[in-house]
Amino acid sequence: MASKINTAPPRGMRDILPHEVELRDAAIQQILAVYRGYGFRRIETPALESLRLLAGADAGENEKLIFKVLKRGEDLESALREGHELADLGLRFDLTVPLVRYYAENHARLPDPLKAIQIGPVWRAERPQKGRYRQFTQCDIDVLGMSSPIVEVELMLATGEALTRLGLSDLTVRVNDRRVLSLIARYCGFGDEQQGGFFIAFDKLDKIGAAGVVGELREAGHAAAALARFERLLPTLQKRELSLETLPETLGASDGAGRAAFESLAWIIATANAAMPAGTRAQFDPTLVRGMGYYTGTIFEIASPAYPSSIAGGGRYDRMVGTLLGREVPACGFSIGFERLVQILLERGDTAAPGAAATETTPRRIALLVEERADLATALAAARALREEGQLVSLELKRKNLGKQLEDFAQHGFWGYALCESSGAVTVKPLTRRERA
Amino acid sequence: MASKINTAPPRGMRDILPHEVELRDAAIQQILAVYRGYGFRRIETPALESLRLLAGADAGENEKLIFKVLKRGEDLESALREGHELADLGLRFDLTVPLVRYYAENHARLPDPLKAIQIGPVWRAERPQKGRYRQFTQCDIDVLGMSSPIVEVELMLATGEALTRLGLSDLTVRVNDRRVLSLIARYCGFGDEQQGGFFIAFDKLDKIGAAGVVGELREAGHAAAALARFERLLPTLQKRELSLETLPETLGASDGAGRAAFESLAWIIATANAAMPAGTRAQFDPTLVRGMGYYTGTIFEIASPAYPSSIAGGGRYDRMVGTLLGREVPACGFSIGFERLVQILLERGDTAAPGAAATETTPRRIALLVEERADLATALAAARALREEGQLVSLELKRKNLGKQLEDFAQHGFWGYALCESSGAVTVKPLTRRERA
Repeated sequence: MASKINTAPPRGMRDILPHEVELRDAAIQQILAVYRGYGFRRIETPALESLRLLAGADAGENEKLIFKVLKRGEDLESALREGHELADLGLRFDLTVPLVRYYAENHARLPDPLKAIQIGPVWRAERPQKGRYRQFTQCDIDVLGMSSPIVEVELMLATGEALTRLGLSDLTVRVNDRRVLSLIARYCGFGDEQQGGFFIAFDKLDKIGAAGVVGELREAGHAAAALARFERLLPTLQKRELSLETLPETLGASDGAGRAAFESLAWIIATANAAMPAGTRAQFDPTLVRGMGYYTGTIFEIASPAYPSSIAGGGRYDRMVGTLLGREVPACGFSIGFERLVQILLERGDTAAPGAAATETTPRRIALLVEERADLATALAAARALREEGQLVSLELKRKNLGKQLEDFAQHGFWGYALCESSGAVTVKPLTRRERA
Repeated sequence: MASKINTAPPRGMRDILPHEVELRDAAIQQILAVYRGYGFRRIETPALESLRLLAGADAGENEKLIFKVLKRGEDLESALREGHELADLGLRFDLTVPLVRYYAENHARLPDPLKAIQIGPVWRAERPQKGRYRQFTQCDIDVLGMSSPIVEVELMLATGEALTRLGLSDLTVRVNDRRVLSLIARYCGFGDEQQGGFFIAFDKLDKIGAAGVVGELREAGHAAAALARFERLLPTLQKRELSLETLPETLGASDGAGRAAFESLAWIIATANAAMPAGTRAQFDPTLVRGMGYYTGTIFEIASPAYPSSIAGGGRYDRMVGTLLGREVPACGFSIGFERLVQILLERGDTAAPGAAATETTPRRIALLVEERADLATALAAARALREEGQLVSLELKRKNLGKQLEDFAQHGFWGYALCESSGAVTVKPLTRRERA
């Protein structure tokens, strides 16, 4: 027999133990149930995509983090010598690029609009660090084919409801619009070609503060007049209850496209707030920027004062499908930070039923102890009866040291145990506090 | 805007449309519910494993089919020149190798015995052909750490129950033991070192018949006397109701290890049959061989006359964990052919609830039609009321051509629709036969 060899998972990846898998599965089922109720349907794409597609996705940093798959059946040495690529496929780094390809490929066979939910692993060869993994689960919810702001409202309602059902509370959906951000940039005097840089600096407001943002813009060489105007405007933008009625006036955007953006925002926020679950609210926040370059309209992010970073985020990206399909298709979506969510549930001490207290009908994990080669018929009948009651019954061989065995059961989430007597009588006993200690 | 580019999934891989995802998800939930009831717990491992582990798994053909992942941050040209490997990771080709690594790595934190269920994708770079894909889902159920044949019985019962609940019927679990196959080989006069070749030929009995097997053994140069003895024995082995009491005598294995193997088999089959779901049976079949080399004891396969090939198979592999852990751990498992199962359910016309007829409480997919910028509050309240009844409600913009829109709904599995009147009244109407046509 070989000596013990390295059995750790690959660097930056992880094995998931049963109790966490159960929590993740339960959270996924809760999330799916809510979105299904809103008419969303789960779709699946392969883990691998062509490198050409992944590289053309305008995905910035993520592109550098692709796990590339070697071509098969090629003479790699001569391929390398002749400057050919060694790899043609890569593991997907997000679920948005595959969604857009899926839609472009299958749209004729899909409902119109497509309301899609995807839950699955993505891979990024990032430098491993605490809480960051090279394989992790994403949960994306998107509506393709509808430009109506009804989409934004339903996405906010469904996501608020999903998170509320998982036991999260005091949630605020910060809402903004890329068109409002453009108005702000223009009002300050940043040229259209400077907007990208302005957004990148502005996006850091939460992290580095107003002085930090202004300093960064100054270093980048923006005009002093624009900076001064931005500095004077910032306190207004940061007001917690900024009125959607006064800002357009301030920005001089009371008509045209600017007015349309503000009206759409006001309608979305008011309509959502009238229907939001208790303890959840939508709030205009002109300082919300979000990193991705592909957004074209509404953007949103869900946060709670109880957690340091946001739990979900998304927005409208009306021009992305067009790059693959050849005609524009409006699109808007939310991405739930699934790993962050699981972390919150784990830290809260959740077990398999996130957000729900155990009730009389919650299945109990029970060990049914039998002697080796006992009359198994009796034990099987007892197990069946308990399973029909909805319990989770594991037949286990009774060990000599029953006390230690019961402690092991307690450690692994068993609720109770039963000894299978030869008479056929079975009494389930809960594990005691001592066994749980 | 770019012209339409290739949006097909990578060669041999597939996009899964919503109705199939729903069927797959429902089947997975049914399978999980049954095994959870038997005390099994889902585990998860990364999609990638080290190539060294994958290559050392004694996995024969599968090893040649590994998708290899390029090393990152290396000078590939000089690596190639110096004879270094270009890849260090590969996508898993089955769930058994990762399970054994997972157990070796995490056993101290896992229940003992570990009753594990895994459901997830695996990848094999096979030549694509009808019904075969390069990414497909496997469903493996294993018990590690128990040598008692109680394991075999529970695996057979749980798997029989899972398949029965999915609506499959007339299932036979063919059961054999590798030790019985060794006895047969020895009885015929094949040497111990010839057993591997004998098993490989014998495994083809279903496909090429008795004459084919004997012919293949003859070509391989086995002794004429052994072949003659095998030919005389075969009709006995192929008897449908072969007695487990007479075969040991025939083979001259009435005592010692041979007798132990037969006794274990008889006990497993009798105990399982006493508890099997209706329409399901376990049956001794000395012609069952199964391909994998790692089996050490009981082997089994589930088939039904309604389907051309087996639906699930597995066996005991008591020496595999030892190769990684350094000490032997008994193990036994079943693998359900998930893709084959889905194919059966799809061909049977199953929808999202495999094996179950729609009832009054089955959720119905309903389109709630609103006018753009209508009073959405009314529609949202109506949607909420229907969702609270358990319906799946999609808010949709009413199109000018309602007739065509209703046909589209019917095509995509909607049950009915409702127009949202300004009065707030909402009446759900089922889609008519004409719309479904």
